[in-house]
Amino acid sequence: MLHAVIMAGGSGTRFWPASRENRPKQMLALASDRPLLRVTADRILPLVPADRLWVVTAASTAEATRALLGELPADHILAEPTGRDTAACVAYAARVLLENDPDAHCLVLPADHVICDEDRFRSAMAAGAAAVEAHGGLLTFGIKPSHAETGYGYLRLGAEAFVQSEWPIHNLEQFVEKPDKETAIAYLADGGYLWNSGMFAWRATDLLAEVRRQLPLLFDGIGVIGDALKTPAEREVLDEIYPRLPRTSVDFGIMESARQCWTMPVDFDWSDVGSWPALAEILAADDRGNTARGRTIDLDSQNTIVVGDGVAVAIIGVNDLVVVATPDAVLVVPKDDAQRVKEVVDTIRERGWNDLL
Amino acid sequence: MLHAVIMAGGSGTRFWPASRENRPKQMLALASDRPLLRVTADRILPLVPADRLWVVTAASTAEATRALLGELPADHILAEPTGRDTAACVAYAARVLLENDPDAHCLVLPADHVICDEDRFRSAMAAGAAAVEAHGGLLTFGIKPSHAETGYGYLRLGAEAFVQSEWPIHNLEQFVEKPDKETAIAYLADGGYLWNSGMFAWRATDLLAEVRRQLPLLFDGIGVIGDALKTPAEREVLDEIYPRLPRTSVDFGIMESARQCWTMPVDFDWSDVGSWPALAEILAADDRGNTARGRTIDLDSQNTIVVGDGVAVAIIGVNDLVVVATPDAVLVVPKDDAQRVKEVVDTIRERGWNDLL
Repeated sequence: MLHAVIMAGGSGTRFWPASRENRPKQMLALASDRPLLRVTADRILPLVPADRLWVVTAASTAEATRALLGELPADHILAEPTGRDTAACVAYAARVLLENDPDAHCLVLPADHVICDEDRFRSAMAAGAAAVEAHGGLLTFGIKPSHAETGYGYLRLGAEAFVQSEWPIHNLEQFVEKPDKETAIAYLADGGYLWNSGMFAWRATDLLAEVRRQLPLLFDGIGVIGDALKTPAEREVLDEIYPRLPRTSVDFGIMESARQCWTMPVDFDWSDVGSWPALAEILAADDRGNTARGRTIDLDSQNTIVVGDGVAVAIIGVNDLVVVATPDAVLVVPKDDAQRVKEVVDTIRERGWNDLL
Repeated sequence: MLHAVIMAGGSGTRFWPASRENRPKQMLALASDRPLLRVTADRILPLVPADRLWVVTAASTAEATRALLGELPADHILAEPTGRDTAACVAYAARVLLENDPDAHCLVLPADHVICDEDRFRSAMAAGAAAVEAHGGLLTFGIKPSHAETGYGYLRLGAEAFVQSEWPIHNLEQFVEKPDKETAIAYLADGGYLWNSGMFAWRATDLLAEVRRQLPLLFDGIGVIGDALKTPAEREVLDEIYPRLPRTSVDFGIMESARQCWTMPVDFDWSDVGSWPALAEILAADDRGNTARGRTIDLDSQNTIVVGDGVAVAIIGVNDLVVVATPDAVLVVPKDDAQRVKEVVDTIRERGWNDLL
């Protein structure tokens, strides 16, 4: 049966002060009036029913996640004691799936991306899932680039292997780290590169076979956790073993050296919404280029991003600025420096202002 | 006996969002950890005891004023049903003083100015009060200008009339409206101009005699209010009459054409703190020119003013900006546009966002 696993482990420091340790990015209603995780679930539910939908999240946000996704069985919220990167996350999920469904194949979806063309999205997901169900292998979805983006990793396309429904499936040649601007321009011109979306499809058995071959320590740890599933010791074993699992990404730790690795080029709109300026590109702007959420007043500003999270924000005559306000913390930063918000979070941690983390 | 009357009727839109209709500027701890009104009271109390200290304020802030100045008799907080400018305010206060003390003379002090050299301040106040007690007339205190300020009204000095203690008292030639820059430079060079501080001294009878002569409608209204003082009808009569009193300033409505008008040049530091940038001139700045109040984080900013009123504020790489944050509203404006905050308040009123007023 087809399952879907939503990876909701993000820390979301890039969206401070709206995001906090116990209110990570996927819990924020950044792009609409629903939290990103809720939108992600709603987007896949027409394809995968709630009793085959799973979420892996931090233990600290498990309760809020259960509340947000009330239609899921309670044990479908998998709580990681600590984050151990995506390889551990997908291996843990695959093991849980197998415990429930020995023939499980699944889609793996990040919780905090924005995709508006939902029909096209589900058509691609259905095709990708059908492809791995029929042929095995590990499949990653690649987004056809619309511009020379330096903020994403890329996938190098290999030869077309087969077509599933209308969707061509290629061999995956290589995962490529985030490029510099010149390289990104070359990738775009080349046409043989896709954005790495972080969305995957595989049979649970195929994924675990690759983990066993490439990451035996991870496989052993997941095995111990798996043996304790649905026993009284489940939580205790998880808390004991999970924090010591090897830390690596699914891309470079599993996919890159997998025996059979596919990629499916997809053409729906997509953004990983990695920063406040990236959010502004998704939302509508007024005729002076200002993007606003919440109750705001602007006098003669241009190209600003203003987010008032339960707080009114007034700006007067400022340009190219990001202003994010919550009832206990405010951020003001030029758009071009928006990535430096991480330094603010580091400073807060150094000063021990834990109420702001 | 010497009394002091603190005029605390300001609306304080210039300090939005820290100031609101029911939390006007004088209630804010702008320059220290005490509200400006509390500082003003503490500054004069060594000279005038609490049982001769009076405050005129808006009815909407009377309760908060009583709480802030707990040592004053409750009936020393005079609540204006609506503000009718300073002539009505001082006439009302004079009438109340006379009811309590037929020989009252008084100092009249704005509630929201900043003066650090308190000994020098009290020395001047004592001399000014003694001068009007001995000689009658209406006296205004004039600040010797330190620079060519365009934000203040000016007083043109006449001839020296006499000396009270060490302080020379001059005839007052003229009240001058806020000048343009060129004129302000000329005033500074001339040496015969002082900043109009809005601080006064007079006998209550002398003030009311001038009101009777120059503003008979105001005198009549104050007379009706005065007849009802300490009767059961006091509040009702005040609410009925006060809102219809003529609206004019003490400077131009009473002082300018008074039969005997003095000014005393004083040399203590003084600011009316008329804007966020004016506040920054009083507070200490760091070595990059940043002034901060509250819990703030700055990465590489310059010449900013950041006020976090129970809210943490992080700024990154911004220059010459004012950021004021409260739990329900935030303002971001370049220093040079800070006076436009009034337009924000107007916009809030138009939109009916009354919780933000």
